[in-house]
Amino acid sequence: MSEKKLHGVFTPNMVPLDDRGRVNEPELRRIVDWLIDCGISGLYPNGSTGEFTRFSFDERKAIVRIVTEQAAGRAFVLAGAAEANVKTTLEAAGYYHSLGCDAVAIVAPFYYKLSQEGVYAYFSEIARESPIDLTLYNIPQFSNDIANDTIKRLAMEHPRVVGIKDSSRDLPRFMNMMNEIAPVRPDFVFLIGCEEIVLPAVLMGADGGTLAISGVVPEVVMKLYHLARANRIAEARAIQYKLLDLIKLIIFGADFPEAVRQAVGLRGFNMGAGRQPLSPSQQFNLDDVRRTVQCILSEFGFTEQPVGGCDPFPAGVDRQSVEQIVQDVIRGLRGPAGR
Amino acid sequence: MSEKKLHGVFTPNMVPLDDRGRVNEPELRRIVDWLIDCGISGLYPNGSTGEFTRFSFDERKAIVRIVTEQAAGRAFVLAGAAEANVKTTLEAAGYYHSLGCDAVAIVAPFYYKLSQEGVYAYFSEIARESPIDLTLYNIPQFSNDIANDTIKRLAMEHPRVVGIKDSSRDLPRFMNMMNEIAPVRPDFVFLIGCEEIVLPAVLMGADGGTLAISGVVPEVVMKLYHLARANRIAEARAIQYKLLDLIKLIIFGADFPEAVRQAVGLRGFNMGAGRQPLSPSQQFNLDDVRRTVQCILSEFGFTEQPVGGCDPFPAGVDRQSVEQIVQDVIRGLRGPAGR
Amino acid sequence: MSEKKLHGVFTPNMVPLDDRGRVNEPELRRIVDWLIDCGISGLYPNGSTGEFTRFSFDERKAIVRIVTEQAAGRAFVLAGAAEANVKTTLEAAGYYHSLGCDAVAIVAPFYYKLSQEGVYAYFSEIARESPIDLTLYNIPQFSNDIANDTIKRLAMEHPRVVGIKDSSRDLPRFMNMMNEIAPVRPDFVFLIGCEEIVLPAVLMGADGGTLAISGVVPEVVMKLYHLARANRIAEARAIQYKLLDLIKLIIFGADFPEAVRQAVGLRGFNMGAGRQPLSPSQQFNLDDVRRTVQCILSEFGFTEQPVGGCDPFPAGVDRQSVEQIVQDVIRGLRGPAGR
Amino acid sequence: MSEKKLHGVFTPNMVPLDDRGRVNEPELRRIVDWLIDCGISGLYPNGSTGEFTRFSFDERKAIVRIVTEQAAGRAFVLAGAAEANVKTTLEAAGYYHSLGCDAVAIVAPFYYKLSQEGVYAYFSEIARESPIDLTLYNIPQFSNDIANDTIKRLAMEHPRVVGIKDSSRDLPRFMNMMNEIAPVRPDFVFLIGCEEIVLPAVLMGADGGTLAISGVVPEVVMKLYHLARANRIAEARAIQYKLLDLIKLIIFGADFPEAVRQAVGLRGFNMGAGRQPLSPSQQFNLDDVRRTVQCILSEFGFTEQPVGGCDPFPAGVDRQSVEQIVQDVIRGLRGPAGR
Repeated sequence: MSEKKLHGVFTPNMVPLDDRGRVNEPELRRIVDWLIDCGISGLYPNGSTGEFTRFSFDERKAIVRIVTEQAAGRAFVLAGAAEANVKTTLEAAGYYHSLGCDAVAIVAPFYYKLSQEGVYAYFSEIARESPIDLTLYNIPQFSNDIANDTIKRLAMEHPRVVGIKDSSRDLPRFMNMMNEIAPVRPDFVFLIGCEEIVLPAVLMGADGGTLAISGVVPEVVMKLYHLARANRIAEARAIQYKLLDLIKLIIFGADFPEAVRQAVGLRGFNMGAGRQPLSPSQQFNLDDVRRTVQCILSEFGFTEQPVGGCDPFPAGVDRQSVEQIVQDVIRGLRGPAGR
Repeated sequence: MSEKKLHGVFTPNMVPLDDRGRVNEPELRRIVDWLIDCGISGLYPNGSTGEFTRFSFDERKAIVRIVTEQAAGRAFVLAGAAEANVKTTLEAAGYYHSLGCDAVAIVAPFYYKLSQEGVYAYFSEIARESPIDLTLYNIPQFSNDIANDTIKRLAMEHPRVVGIKDSSRDLPRFMNMMNEIAPVRPDFVFLIGCEEIVLPAVLMGADGGTLAISGVVPEVVMKLYHLARANRIAEARAIQYKLLDLIKLIIFGADFPEAVRQAVGLRGFNMGAGRQPLSPSQQFNLDDVRRTVQCILSEFGFTEQPVGGCDPFPAGVDRQSVEQIVQDVIRGLRGPAGR
Repeated sequence: MSEKKLHGVFTPNMVPLDDRGRVNEPELRRIVDWLIDCGISGLYPNGSTGEFTRFSFDERKAIVRIVTEQAAGRAFVLAGAAEANVKTTLEAAGYYHSLGCDAVAIVAPFYYKLSQEGVYAYFSEIARESPIDLTLYNIPQFSNDIANDTIKRLAMEHPRVVGIKDSSRDLPRFMNMMNEIAPVRPDFVFLIGCEEIVLPAVLMGADGGTLAISGVVPEVVMKLYHLARANRIAEARAIQYKLLDLIKLIIFGADFPEAVRQAVGLRGFNMGAGRQPLSPSQQFNLDDVRRTVQCILSEFGFTEQPVGGCDPFPAGVDRQSVEQIVQDVIRGLRGPAGR
Repeated sequence: MSEKKLHGVFTPNMVPLDDRGRVNEPELRRIVDWLIDCGISGLYPNGSTGEFTRFSFDERKAIVRIVTEQAAGRAFVLAGAAEANVKTTLEAAGYYHSLGCDAVAIVAPFYYKLSQEGVYAYFSEIARESPIDLTLYNIPQFSNDIANDTIKRLAMEHPRVVGIKDSSRDLPRFMNMMNEIAPVRPDFVFLIGCEEIVLPAVLMGADGGTLAISGVVPEVVMKLYHLARANRIAEARAIQYKLLDLIKLIIFGADFPEAVRQAVGLRGFNMGAGRQPLSPSQQFNLDDVRRTVQCILSEFGFTEQPVGGCDPFPAGVDRQSVEQIVQDVIRGLRGPAGR
C-alpha cells in the first residue's frame, strides 16, 4: 500500500500552562520530543483536545510555531487553523504554511446552525484561497455537521482539500464516506478521530487517526496501529479492548478534555490548571487513571505493573476461576431443565 | 408594577459592514439613533443576532463603545461580553463597565459540552470578579444549556447575577424558571429571547425581551410590548400573530442571522455583505420580506400599504368570502349525513 | 365567541385496575361521575395518560364503551382510536361512532420513523374512510411528529379532520399552527396538550386542552380555564403558577404516567397497580404529592389546608419577610459600591 | 472458537401479504425454504423488518408458527415476542417455547419514555417468568434505549437473558458492551443489528448479526460472514463495501422497511402491498435496486451481470483511467507550485 500524504496516528496536542495560566513553552517542547520519541506519526496542535477555543489568536499562532519548530520535520504537523471568520482563518493558514506545517485542519463553523449550503460555502471560500493543503474536521457533537455529500462535493471541486478527520464516533458514516469518495479522489486522506474504534476503522481502510489518547499512552497506540496495518488482528484487538477502559475514564470521565490533561500529567509533565473553571465537586480522582495507565503500559511490555498488580480480582482468584463460578451459578439457577 | 433594573424590549444590534468588511461606524450610529427614536428600551451589542463570534475581540470592544457612546444614556445598554476564557471575559466586562454600560450578558460556554457543574463553575468565577452586573444568556440551540436549577443556584449565590435572557423558545421552561426563582430573588430580571412568544411571556410575567425582530420593525414591537403591559390582549394578539409571518421569513428563512441583516437593510441602512460566505443557491429573495415588512407597518398605522396591497387574496375576493367558500365546500363534502 | 364543536378541558382518563390487573369497571364509572360533577368539559379515554398501548384492543373498546355509557351525554367524549394498522383503526372508529362518541383522536404512527409523506398518507387514508370526525394527536416525544404543513394539508383536504390536540410543549409551534390553519379552516379545533402552558395557550386563542392534571384537580383546572376565557389574567395566572409545582411532581416526577395514577388515587379512587413493572428503587413517595394537592385545593377554595399548613416557610416567618431578608443579604453582599 | 448457543446471520423475516392484506402463508413458507437453501443461520420473525407492530397478536403468533414449522430445525428460530404488556408478552413467550423456537427476542418498551430503572424492571419481570431463553433487543431509534449498564445488570442477574441484538448503529457502544459483559457472562451472545458494519463487528468479536439485507441477498451476506470468521479481510471488505450501495437504497431509501419488502419481491416472491399507506409521491423506483442487486450477485459469483453491465463508467473507460484523469486534473489545478 503506497502511503498517502498524511497517514498514521496524530496526537492532538494538549497545551501545558504555567502557574500564571500562560502557555508553558519549555514543557510543550518536552512533550513534543517525548511523543516523537514514542514514534507518533504526527502532531496536531489547536485541535479540540488542545482547547483551541480557550486561547487567543496570538496564543494559537504561538502554539503552532513552538510545535512545528520542535518537531523539526521529525513528524507531520497538522495545524488547527479555524478562526472567527474566513479572512482570519486564511491569515492563520498563511502563517502555518510559512512555518512549514504539512497541512491545516479546519473545523466546521460552530455556534450558529448552518445549512449544508452554508457549510459548503464556508469551506469553498477557504479552499480557493488557502496557500496550504487542508483537511476538513468533522465533529458534529461540537460544531456544524459536514454531511458526506458535502465532503464529496468539496473533495471533487477543491484539490486543496486533501482529507477529512472525522470525530463523529459513527463508523457506518465513516465507511460510507470512504466508499463514496475514495473512487473519485484516490489521494483523499481519511483519519478517524475516535480512539474507541481505531482498529476497525483501520481494518476498513482508514489512513490513520487523530487520537487524544495517543497523548497519554503513545507507545501503546502506535503498537496498536502497526499491528492493525499488519493485519495482526488478535493482538491488535487485545490492545483496542484494553484501551476502552482508559478511554472511558479520560474521554468520558469528566468534562472533556480535563481528564486528558491530567492523564498527560501522569506521564511526567507539568500541565498546570486548565482555563475552564472546575467546581469543588468536579475534582477528579486520578488514582484510577494512574493505575489503568500503568497496567496498560505493563500489559503491552512498556513498564512494570503497579504496586498491587493489575488483576481486577483479589489475590488467589484468577479471572478464569471467576468465570467458572459465574457459569456454575448460572447453570444452577437454570435448574435441571435449563437449556 | 415597579420596574426592575432592566426591562422592556432590547434590540440585539446587527453590525453594518463597509465594502472592505470592516465595522461601518457611521451607519451603526445611524441605526442606534433610529432605534432610540422608535422608542426601543435598550440596545444589546454582541448578541447572537450581532454575530459576535465572527468578530475579533478588538472589534467587539469597538462595537460596544460605539453603541454606548451613541446611546448616550437614552436607552439601556446590555453588552455581550463572552470571550474565549474567564480572564478575557472579565477584561471585556471591565471595559464595558468603564464605558457606562448597564450590564453585560454572558452566554454559556459553547463548543465543548459541559456538565451543569462546569456551567456553574464558569459563571461563578465570572460573577465573583465582575465589576458590573451580569445577565445569564441561555441559548441551548447554540451553546451549553443553563438548567433552571443552575440559574437558581447562581441567582441565590451571586448578587452580580441580576437576570436571565432565555432564547430557548421553551415557554414551559421559562415559566418554571420564573416560578422557582422570583420568590427567592425578587429583583431578578426575566427577559424572553424569542419573538414568537413575547406576548404570552409578558402576560405570564416576563420583564421584557431581547428580540431580533425589533431591529427590523421596532415601532411595531414596542407597540406590542406596551399593549401587553397594559393587558390589552386582543390588540396585542393581532400584532403578535402578524409578526409570526415576518419571523418565519427572517428568523427561519435562511441561515440565521443572514435574513435579519438584509431585513434591517430594507429599513434604509447599508448593512454590507456578511462575514459568513453564501453559496450561489443561498441567494435570498427579499421581495417577500419587503412586502411583509411594509404590510405590517401599514396595518398598525406606521406607513402606507405597498403597491398591490396586503390582502393575500386577489382583488374582489376578501378573506371573509374565501372562508365562506371553504366552509361551504367542507359542508358539501360531508354530505347530508355529516355532523 | 361562538364555540366550536369541541372545546374546553378534556380529561385523559386513567384506567383503574382491579387486583388481578383487569379494568375495574365500577371504579372507572365512579371516576367519570366525579369528573363530570367537577365540571369537566370532556372525557378522553385511550390517550397517552390512559396508557392505551398497554391494553389489548378488546380492553380499549371496553374502556371507551364504559366511559361513553357513563357520561351519557353530560360531557364530550373524544376516544383514542389508534390501532396497529389502518384497517383496525377504522374498525375502532366505527365502533366508537356507534357508541355515540363525539370524535376520535388518532395519534401519529409510532415505533417506525415516517417521513411527512408517510404521516400524511396514513391520516389521509383514515380520514377518507372514517365514519366519525377525528382530531389529529401530535405528541412528538412518543410518536412521529405531525409537522404544521402536514396538519394544514390534512385540514384543507379532509372535512373529517376537525382539529388537533398538540402535546409538543412547544408554544411557538402551536401559535404558528393556529396562525396558518385558522384562516383556511375556521372551524378547526386547537387543543393544547400541555398543562404547563394552558393559560397562555388559551389567551392566544386555543379552544381548550387535554390535560392529565385535570384528572387530579379537575375543580382547579376548570376554574383556571373559565378565568382564562374571561380574560381575568391575574387570577388565572396565580392558579397556573401554583399548578406548576404539582405538574413537576406528577408529570415529571416518575416514569409517566405512573405518578398521575397515584395522584388520582389520592382523590379517593382505587387505581390498583399499573401494568409497567416498577423496580424497588422506583417506589414513589406520595407524601409531597398529597400535600401539594391539598394545598392547591385549599388555596383556591375547594377544601381545608392540610395539617401543618401550606406555607413553605416555618411558622412565624412569612414569605414577605423571607424575601426582605434575601434582599438585605444581597444588598449587603454588594457592599457600598454595589449598584 | 467454540460457538455459543446462537450465532451466525439471522434474517428478520418480512411477511408477504395476499391481495386482501392477510398473511400469505404459502409465500412465507417459500421464503423460509429459500433462505435456508441459501445457508442462512437463523430466522427472526416479528422483528422490526417484519413490521411486528402492524399485525395483531393472533397474526404474530401465526407468523412464528409458520416460520418455525417450515424451518423444521434446519435453522435457528429467534422469535420476536414483545406484546402490549408483561402478561401478554409471557403468553407469547410460552407459545413460542411450545413451538420449539430457540429463543425469543424482546424489544424494550416503546412509546412511553422510561428511565433505565423502568427498562430494567420490565425485562427483569419477564426474565423471571419466561419459560424460554430471551435476547434483549436494543433499537434506540424506535424504542427506549437499553444502556450498557442495564444490559450488564440483566446479564448478571438472569440466566434466561442469553444475549443482545443491538441495532443502534453505534460500534463504540457495541464494543464497550462486549468489553464489559463478556468477562462476567462468557456465554452471552452479541448480535449486531446493522448491516453496514457487520464485518468490523465480527472482526471485533460479535457472534453474528440480524441483518435485514440478508433477506434480499442471503448468498452474499453469508459469504461475507464466513470470510469474516476466517479473517479473510480483503475479500470480506470488498463485499462489505459493495453492500453499502444496496443498503443505502433499501434501508435508507424510503420509509423503512418498505424498500426492503420491494427488494425481497425482486428475488421472486409476491410480497403484496404493505400495511402502511403510501402517498403518490412515495412511489418507489425499483430499477436502481434491481440493477444493484443483480450486480452484487454477479460480482460475487451468484448470477450473470444485468443487461448493460455493472460498471458505473461508460464503455471503454475503466475505473483506473477515470482515476488517472481525476488525478491529472487535480495536479493541473494545483499548478506548478502545488505540493
